[in-house]
Amino acid sequence: MTETVKDPIRPTDDEARALACGLIAGARFAALGVTDPETGFPAVTRIALGSGPEGGIWTLVSGLSAHSRALRADPRASLLVGEPGPKGDPLTHPRLSLQVMAEPLAPGDPRRAAARARWLADHPKAKLYIDLPDFFFVAFRPVSGALNGGFGRAFRLTPEDLA
Amino acid sequence: MTETVKDPIRPTDDEARALACGLIAGARFAALGVTDPETGFPAVTRIALGSGPEGGIWTLVSGLSAHSRALRADPRASLLVGEPGPKGDPLTHPRLSLQVMAEPLAPGDPRRAAARARWLADHPKAKLYIDLPDFFFVAFRPVSGALNGGFGRAFRLTPEDLA
Repeated sequence: MTETVKDPIRPTDDEARALACGLIAGARFAALGVTDPETGFPAVTRIALGSGPEGGIWTLVSGLSAHSRALRADPRASLLVGEPGPKGDPLTHPRLSLQVMAEPLAPGDPRRAAARARWLADHPKAKLYIDLPDFFFVAFRPVSGALNGGFGRAFRLTPEDLA
Repeated sequence: MTETVKDPIRPTDDEARALACGLIAGARFAALGVTDPETGFPAVTRIALGSGPEGGIWTLVSGLSAHSRALRADPRASLLVGEPGPKGDPLTHPRLSLQVMAEPLAPGDPRRAAARARWLADHPKAKLYIDLPDFFFVAFRPVSGALNGGFGRAFRLTPEDLA
């Protein structure tokens, strides 16, 4: 086997950065990975995804959910974005795995009103639950990214690559 | 707030079991959650999903991938199955989060030939890489499941519920 096969990571270029940022911008939802505080197992659930009032990667979650309890115990998380279409090999569809720190918006945070307006503009159906007392916003701060642009097209990304 | 709102988990019934088993049977791929052995962060990636020669939940992965290195260090994993369609609120679409133990098929395992035939029947495009020396099968043994059948329809499932 050649060295190229053993290390499938390519040097990050502008095309990879643009693909990663496009996957984030186009994501209405994501697979969220957290660590289950009771068992230590990873736990993957689906969450809504959107932007905060000044961009970034945000979600709106219920405090009653298992993932929000897990994030209170350990804010280290992962997000997978980039959904395959109904046809073709789903493993050839580009996707981005992010390692992120979850930063919940505290009650009374002055950004709440702008975040609410931005979220409802992008997720109109959220009006059914956005004002329930257990729902709150979380901002995800990227730590690193792994972009898979299809077979043999893998890249590592820094927070700067994703800004 | 009433007790019903504080504990949104419903008693598991046959309808929930059938929905969960249908989500597994229909999944061509899944979001896999592992623990990154270098950072301790959760890491979510996309993998192919299928059945083994006698059923169950199997994948075919490359030993060069970050998730297979992570599973060698810690076999505790999570799978998310149940993909939203292109329309509607993706958070109302049923999905299943599993906690699983990853059990790789050892080289020379007598089940390999039957697993290979079953996999190619379900994933014909895998013929491009199934015989590469770094690819191997992994069986996932369910430990527990969390089914979300849409807003307010949450269930906990045991391995027996999923058999």
